[in-house]
Amino acid sequence: MIGVDWGTTSLRAYRIGAAGAPEARIDRPGGILTVPEGGFPAALREAIGPWLVEGETKVLLCGMVGSRQGWVEAPYLRCPAGPAEIAAATTPIPFEGAELRLIPGLTTEDGSGIPDVMRGEETKLVALAETIGSGLACLPGTHSKWARLEGGRVTGFTTHMTGETFAALSQHTILARTSVEGPDVPEAFARGVERARQPGGLLHHLFGARTLHLMGRLAQAETRSFLSGLLIGHEIAAAAQGVAQVHLAGAASLSALYAAALAQNGIAVTRHDPDLVAAGLRHIGRSLQWV
Amino acid sequence: MIGVDWGTTSLRAYRIGAAGAPEARIDRPGGILTVPEGGFPAALREAIGPWLVEGETKVLLCGMVGSRQGWVEAPYLRCPAGPAEIAAATTPIPFEGAELRLIPGLTTEDGSGIPDVMRGEETKLVALAETIGSGLACLPGTHSKWARLEGGRVTGFTTHMTGETFAALSQHTILARTSVEGPDVPEAFARGVERARQPGGLLHHLFGARTLHLMGRLAQAETRSFLSGLLIGHEIAAAAQGVAQVHLAGAASLSALYAAALAQNGIAVTRHDPDLVAAGLRHIGRSLQWV
Repeated sequence: MIGVDWGTTSLRAYRIGAAGAPEARIDRPGGILTVPEGGFPAALREAIGPWLVEGETKVLLCGMVGSRQGWVEAPYLRCPAGPAEIAAATTPIPFEGAELRLIPGLTTEDGSGIPDVMRGEETKLVALAETIGSGLACLPGTHSKWARLEGGRVTGFTTHMTGETFAALSQHTILARTSVEGPDVPEAFARGVERARQPGGLLHHLFGARTLHLMGRLAQAETRSFLSGLLIGHEIAAAAQGVAQVHLAGAASLSALYAAALAQNGIAVTRHDPDLVAAGLRHIGRSLQWV
Repeated sequence: MIGVDWGTTSLRAYRIGAAGAPEARIDRPGGILTVPEGGFPAALREAIGPWLVEGETKVLLCGMVGSRQGWVEAPYLRCPAGPAEIAAATTPIPFEGAELRLIPGLTTEDGSGIPDVMRGEETKLVALAETIGSGLACLPGTHSKWARLEGGRVTGFTTHMTGETFAALSQHTILARTSVEGPDVPEAFARGVERARQPGGLLHHLFGARTLHLMGRLAQAETRSFLSGLLIGHEIAAAAQGVAQVHLAGAASLSALYAAALAQNGIAVTRHDPDLVAAGLRHIGRSLQWV
């Protein structure tokens, strides 16, 4: 089978056998935002045509290709969901010469009845759940996802707009004056994480990044790291309350920050290779009996 | 005496007698950011020259004119501080033909030892404290100030970066797509305030403004008000925890939002005329025996 992770900015395709690492992979720009109206069949054929010619006939797609801005909108599937439920909820797309199926995103509601969604991350989480079975997983990023995994399924999750909030605050508020780009300062990051553990609330803590600088207690080169620690600390306080261990899978530098902040909160961290999509596609393909 | 509130964007001057409302007032643009290097004496003379000619010889200034970007930096005075302490800490400025004094900003530290500052608001709070004696005061805005007033003095305060965070998030994140300018929607605002009372944390609640819209449960015209209620609700949860009554003094439309959010949190609100600076200048002037 062929697995495709087609996001907003890139297309990654994997030629997948029954087990182990993918036999071949393609990584190219050409995210869904670059595809012209009606251009998805041609764009996919351009990317994976040779594999189709060589006899692959099953193609499983995940990511924003299944969003309202993508090829076809694949409705969100409600948690709890594992490979079997996700496979059963895939959306077929007519395509000359191969069977195409689109993986749904997941949706859940928190205890207050407010909805949450993910699209693309469900495939990574399926792979993580296959490895760890049960636990709390964190995929840090622009919109960090925290998912409860139980018996190989995603039973619920929350999204935290941490990365995007960091970008907006560090570039478009009074903090921008001192939040200069530069190397991470671990000590300043740790001070931000510590601050998040204190009372006062995030909106008050943000102003502290300004006053500490004004009082000569936080250098300009430290403000950005302090702010990063403050926001990640607040995310962890909300998402990992009362949790003893977190499974972390994300880009190396960001994961290192989260691991440090989790450790500072007394939470054990297990780090995982973030390259999980191919394995997730294989697990869902197995439920479709494609591998 | 003459009282001057000289901020970043405007200059307001008051001719003040011993009691009651100012005898005359001037309100003009020409904030400190428009004053060229060394231009403060000339700019002040241009604004209040006629009153000086008529025999006023005492001028008391407050606001950002006393900041690092202003005329002379007036060091922050530590809380607790009332009119007497503030008057004693004013900074004299040499000026031909009149006695000029600059009001200091205030500083405090929270229980965790993190500093906070205000500059300009202390003068309004002096006036409010004269009226109410003791209580919790809120001056909502870009950087909202919550001050504890006791026996006519400011004993401590916290700043919340709510207004500026609202602007950054509603203009520079994914929420900008749906946070269109438009009339306030009280019902959506109340939903945001309610959401802030639920668990999950602000960074998670922010993403809810996106998912509620995605799920057709929050209209585009409602998103901005929901986000406003969410942030103000989080500010109140942090700043007014366990408080029964708040004294509110701010611009009419913003105060109406805060009053609604406070009421929704079961907190009694007393609204005050936000035009407090002249009275505060008079009270501090009285401690200087200028009126």
